[in-house]
Amino acid sequence: MRASIIGSGNVATHLAKALHQAQVEIHGIWSHQFENAVLLAKQVGAKAVRQISEIIQDESDIVLISVKDDAIAEVAAQLRNYRGIVAHTSGAIALNALSGNANYGVFYPLQTFSKHRNLDFSQVPLCLEANTNQNLQQLKMLAALLSNSVFEVDTEQRKILHLAAVFACNFPNYLYGVAQQLLAQHQLDFDIVRPLIAETAQKVQTALPIEMQTGPAIRNDQQTLKKHEDLLKGHADWLTIYKLLSEQIKKNR
Amino acid sequence: MRASIIGSGNVATHLAKALHQAQVEIHGIWSHQFENAVLLAKQVGAKAVRQISEIIQDESDIVLISVKDDAIAEVAAQLRNYRGIVAHTSGAIALNALSGNANYGVFYPLQTFSKHRNLDFSQVPLCLEANTNQNLQQLKMLAALLSNSVFEVDTEQRKILHLAAVFACNFPNYLYGVAQQLLAQHQLDFDIVRPLIAETAQKVQTALPIEMQTGPAIRNDQQTLKKHEDLLKGHADWLTIYKLLSEQIKKNR
Repeated sequence: MRASIIGSGNVATHLAKALHQAQVEIHGIWSHQFENAVLLAKQVGAKAVRQISEIIQDESDIVLISVKDDAIAEVAAQLRNYRGIVAHTSGAIALNALSGNANYGVFYPLQTFSKHRNLDFSQVPLCLEANTNQNLQQLKMLAALLSNSVFEVDTEQRKILHLAAVFACNFPNYLYGVAQQLLAQHQLDFDIVRPLIAETAQKVQTALPIEMQTGPAIRNDQQTLKKHEDLLKGHADWLTIYKLLSEQIKKNR
Repeated sequence: MRASIIGSGNVATHLAKALHQAQVEIHGIWSHQFENAVLLAKQVGAKAVRQISEIIQDESDIVLISVKDDAIAEVAAQLRNYRGIVAHTSGAIALNALSGNANYGVFYPLQTFSKHRNLDFSQVPLCLEANTNQNLQQLKMLAALLSNSVFEVDTEQRKILHLAAVFACNFPNYLYGVAQQLLAQHQLDFDIVRPLIAETAQKVQTALPIEMQTGPAIRNDQQTLKKHEDLLKGHADWLTIYKLLSEQIKKNR
């Protein structure tokens, strides 16, 4: 299979590199900023193009659209005459946002990508959806070259996944930040809790989170809960979070 | 150095095994349930004792008290005539809870321990405090045999650490559970978000959480926030959490 790519952000960059590593030929790369397309194209043996229309006539079998959610429809509209599969990589956009095209699908990698961080793409779950079974098989073939973790996920399920990712990633990261700030305010190094953060995430790789819950709330240890609330007296926002999440954990007892 | 241990729970078990591995001789092990002391003693070449008083006359240089917080004072009182160092392993109990003893300290491993899960103890941060500098040096010697990550932490700081651990471990684990339940309700496998959870924790091993924040709240992406809130309409508790944490993340913008 041969691919082209629209976009040069975190997801586009990681996808392009993974495709290149899997020896999938990459034809054109287009980006809103031509210079960014040039930079990415250089790294993956592709050609930066100035117009999306140049992708239409290229030799690719699939074009992956990795741009901001609200730009996807506009990009897809410019690819109406593309004969291969047009697939976006967004968790939040429905399959039928591409329904003006003939062959279309979703190729959603569920991971948190940072440009300057290497990642083992073979472990990245790829969530696929397509307008026909034949197109789905094509996406599956491509996905299998990149990852050992491939799932069929429809638009409604993908919305839930996108929401679940906020609870599994964005919110925990925010709470890590609260811990880090609490420590810093008391001249304590964040290194002291880093192994705890890593182990907490590791534990649920083979077990369910509910089975792994620890801490004063699940034990209903009123004395410790009270002590913690006292320590948070100068931090109204964090105290609110502490109380709310502790109450929720108690309900799971 | 030679150690004895009071307790046979998660922390006592992991500590005993780590001491044994580091070739620290373990003398007596006492547990509220004698059979548990026997089971643990067998694994680490120690002797289970029926009375705490038997520890007083043994050859150990330090006795580690790893029992429930509210039992620590009572155990320490029974060790008044012990000539070595009496140290508890709790994050929440003050150093001076042991002040009836001559030589005392705190030997607090900041990690989430499960009995049936192996752990590389050399990565477990050990937080130390003692009543004299000499005793602190003794604790440091012992700690250095077990871990590469040793910190001096006073009682006030340790209270903060214990609180920070709730934000770094207990609350994120609860949120993993919300993600898992959301997925299950829509016939989605928790495996799809497990790599995301692992990567989110890995990212902050070398960076600060605030620099790593992603998701709709930090982008102030109102449309996605609204979509997610709509999806949570049947889950009042989760909706409250979603709104509160999203508001907090927005404040960090």
